[in-house]
Amino acid sequence: MPGQLVNASVIAATFKDEIKSVIAEKGISPKLVGFLANDDPAARMYADWTAKTFAETGLTYELREVDKKELESALVEANNDTQVHGIMIYYPVFGDRQDHYLQSCVSEKKDVEGLCHKYIYNMYHNVRFLDDPVAEKKCIIPCTPLAVVKVLEYVGVYNKILEYGNRLHGRTITIVNRSEVVGRPLAALLANDGAKVYSVDIDNVQEFSRGDGLKLSRYHAADTTFKLEDVLPLSDVVITGVPSPNFKVDTSLLKEGCIAVNFSSAKNFNPDVRDRASLYVPSIGKITIMMLERNLLRLHDYYST
Amino acid sequence: MPGQLVNASVIAATFKDEIKSVIAEKGISPKLVGFLANDDPAARMYADWTAKTFAETGLTYELREVDKKELESALVEANNDTQVHGIMIYYPVFGDRQDHYLQSCVSEKKDVEGLCHKYIYNMYHNVRFLDDPVAEKKCIIPCTPLAVVKVLEYVGVYNKILEYGNRLHGRTITIVNRSEVVGRPLAALLANDGAKVYSVDIDNVQEFSRGDGLKLSRYHAADTTFKLEDVLPLSDVVITGVPSPNFKVDTSLLKEGCIAVNFSSAKNFNPDVRDRASLYVPSIGKITIMMLERNLLRLHDYYST
Repeated sequence: MPGQLVNASVIAATFKDEIKSVIAEKGISPKLVGFLANDDPAARMYADWTAKTFAETGLTYELREVDKKELESALVEANNDTQVHGIMIYYPVFGDRQDHYLQSCVSEKKDVEGLCHKYIYNMYHNVRFLDDPVAEKKCIIPCTPLAVVKVLEYVGVYNKILEYGNRLHGRTITIVNRSEVVGRPLAALLANDGAKVYSVDIDNVQEFSRGDGLKLSRYHAADTTFKLEDVLPLSDVVITGVPSPNFKVDTSLLKEGCIAVNFSSAKNFNPDVRDRASLYVPSIGKITIMMLERNLLRLHDYYST
Repeated sequence: MPGQLVNASVIAATFKDEIKSVIAEKGISPKLVGFLANDDPAARMYADWTAKTFAETGLTYELREVDKKELESALVEANNDTQVHGIMIYYPVFGDRQDHYLQSCVSEKKDVEGLCHKYIYNMYHNVRFLDDPVAEKKCIIPCTPLAVVKVLEYVGVYNKILEYGNRLHGRTITIVNRSEVVGRPLAALLANDGAKVYSVDIDNVQEFSRGDGLKLSRYHAADTTFKLEDVLPLSDVVITGVPSPNFKVDTSLLKEGCIAVNFSSAKNFNPDVRDRASLYVPSIGKITIMMLERNLLRLHDYYST
């Protein structure tokens, strides 16, 4: 009997319902402004899809197309506009360090993507709240890594009996992708939640963990001599994000009953993955966009009410 | 009669004397910690040279060699150590976006290199003070661009009769280099001070300026159809930073009586440059390190007294 296929739309629906009821109850319609300053058809598709999803949920979305040289000024204007509650930029804009600079130019009060330095720093340093010790305002987490966390919560990898912050203790998770945008932050997030994470890229395998007995308050990363084929059989969860149709995880190496999650637009698992995996989540895009909505609601709640 | 050769050590000496007298008068010895986490011999050489220069001036310098995986933790420790007044990192560490992230991890109270987001943002946005409207605490400016500004002040390109902030009004300056580390920030700084700047890289020539009559409060950058050979004859000042021994400015294209400044470790001007230039500054390294000391004193003054 093959493992269970879990469609992202099922998970996304739980968030959509929750968001709809919150905005109905409060009578609000927070506004997100998306800045498009490139000619990338994929960015425009994502913008169109955001507009559609926001309309369905009852949130406001406005696309602003600007020349990349005008983007920074347009951004400052939106930062200062009280009618705008969230801001996102479709990257790449310049495709270099200027893009990283732009990420931190988005006001932390409107940064729905969680990409400004403060949020990224807090994420890596396992700082979970903006208002310690009151601890009512959670930090904003980037949407794609957050969507993966929500998948893992949904499919039961997070153990709710354990203390908040330690709910992945005992889990071994492999992530094939160590990009600065998704793979490395995700490895840090999951390790900060207590998992032992093998972070795999083309160069090597790193281990991210808080050590035996979670002795560290935040993750530590170390090189290993492992290869992908060494860590796959050890992993309760295998998460892939390789943007190539040619990369496929060797199903025969997967631990029997593991959980397979793919966040790449390419299919990184073979069709027979469910011969070994108990649960398979082939894509997460629909959940990612719910995280965008959720982050917007959160910032609206923190700073506009 | 050839143009005048201006040695960086002459300009550097004026700052060294000033710094020595300030620390003698106040009886202080602010401490800079440099983090070395790579095997780059050039970085070590720069570290050794920093140690030597600091000892000569009477400032304290400590080199901390750490594994790059431990750098972030070591940095946090130094951020929190009241005995440390300034912090610098020898880049590259990871050689990618993580380096940009690290730049913003240095506390703005100790960021002698002026590379954290706040200082970079303020520089591009022509925000000069940390404490508007009191305006007693100037923002920290990255050392190399600042050294070029000091060269231009020394050789009289800045017109002291004009209002502070507009003292390059009327000057046309070409900068051959548009790196994120020096060329682009420098173009922004000089344009914010009122110059019309032609910023040249391998792709094109951009014009940075505040417009006719300095109508803009900060620079605007626009592509042009010019080439290097078009803008050289228009330029009162030509500043070069091409890290290649093969790149040479064609002396015959220089405006008669212009000022030539090279910040590359390679010599970007031909030996005959003084046939056209009235003043030639072949290197600026010694001034750069004085700016490092000056930034350290400034941060010590702002935050530790």
